[in-house]
Amino acid sequence: MKFGIIGTGDVAGAIATKLVTLGHEVNMGARSTNNEKAKEWSKLNGALASQGTFKDAASFGDIIFNCTGGAVSLDALEMAGSENLSGKVLVDIANPLVRGEYLSLVPSLSNTTSLGEEIQKKFSDTKVVKTLNTMHYSLMVEPSLLKEKHDVFVCSDHEDAKEKVKEILNWFGWEAPVDLGKLPNARYTEMLSTVWRPVFQLTHDPIFAFKIVRN
Amino acid sequence: MKFGIIGTGDVAGAIATKLVTLGHEVNMGARSTNNEKAKEWSKLNGALASQGTFKDAASFGDIIFNCTGGAVSLDALEMAGSENLSGKVLVDIANPLVRGEYLSLVPSLSNTTSLGEEIQKKFSDTKVVKTLNTMHYSLMVEPSLLKEKHDVFVCSDHEDAKEKVKEILNWFGWEAPVDLGKLPNARYTEMLSTVWRPVFQLTHDPIFAFKIVRN
Repeated sequence: MKFGIIGTGDVAGAIATKLVTLGHEVNMGARSTNNEKAKEWSKLNGALASQGTFKDAASFGDIIFNCTGGAVSLDALEMAGSENLSGKVLVDIANPLVRGEYLSLVPSLSNTTSLGEEIQKKFSDTKVVKTLNTMHYSLMVEPSLLKEKHDVFVCSDHEDAKEKVKEILNWFGWEAPVDLGKLPNARYTEMLSTVWRPVFQLTHDPIFAFKIVRN
Repeated sequence: MKFGIIGTGDVAGAIATKLVTLGHEVNMGARSTNNEKAKEWSKLNGALASQGTFKDAASFGDIIFNCTGGAVSLDALEMAGSENLSGKVLVDIANPLVRGEYLSLVPSLSNTTSLGEEIQKKFSDTKVVKTLNTMHYSLMVEPSLLKEKHDVFVCSDHEDAKEKVKEILNWFGWEAPVDLGKLPNARYTEMLSTVWRPVFQLTHDPIFAFKIVRN
């Protein structure tokens, strides 16, 4: 399968490298051409790895991962081009965080809406699936870094796209993703992502994750 | 020790009953005098149990629990009277939820502030401790209803008050509350509380809770 990765940061690198390791063709897309991180990643990851712009990555992939910072994701995806995203599954991993002494969420992208929903509204021919946005990037593609089971959440308005993404999550090592239903529930997983920082300030170790404990 | 409970709902009932069971004197306070639920609770819980208004409960207790709906907590505490809360520990369990097809948080009480912080600002002579706001009321006072360990969070700007509340949490069965530091981190546990509903829609069983999984 061919994947396009929008973004060049740590999340993008983790997802892109994992997909190549699993034998898939991956294009990592940057804001501008000749991005050093994208070129470096491509060089290190062999024949299945390529790089280009947001537009290149979007047109390359059958499935697209949004790994940009949530506060700029809508702009980044606009640069990628709705025509290049049309009919495709977009896996949205971003959180619309505003950094500062205390984290907050971009007001226009939270509470009574979410980044996932706003992407879905703007790119109505694309099937947005929200997932993987509540843990450190190293756990996204290797949940067994924690000995104890923990949870990944997934939601979407498109059942077929959600099932496809659950399969990809299985490849990554997630046995039973928690299906939170429709895309508006992304509001709550995006909110949950903010709990990450105070917990990290306590643990000083980014390898932790959330779990729903049930009987 | 003497406790005042502000509120008469399920959360208030669970906390008040547990405290009486533990041998403490408890006054349950309602918005108006002669509240049926408060009278019923008092009648059922013996000599240690009494009831009255918000003001009665606040003036009775050395430690006060805010168990009102978060969207109306500031008004309820104003009715209780700052003079009756002054110098006391206030355990804030409420979440500023707006109910609807999808939950949201009251904008003026969330994101860059929290209900906990707004209570602390308004009642500056009171020591606010935020805790117990992320699980079903039955688990608040009986965490062992779930076989597997799960977490309760606690934060406050007042270390002495926080330690006192951690001790009360110990009485309730919480062995190691997760100390999230200062009160502004209530923003994140209040956000976390919203994840409760989509998970409940999935599990159809309110007896579940959040856990931080670490190595």
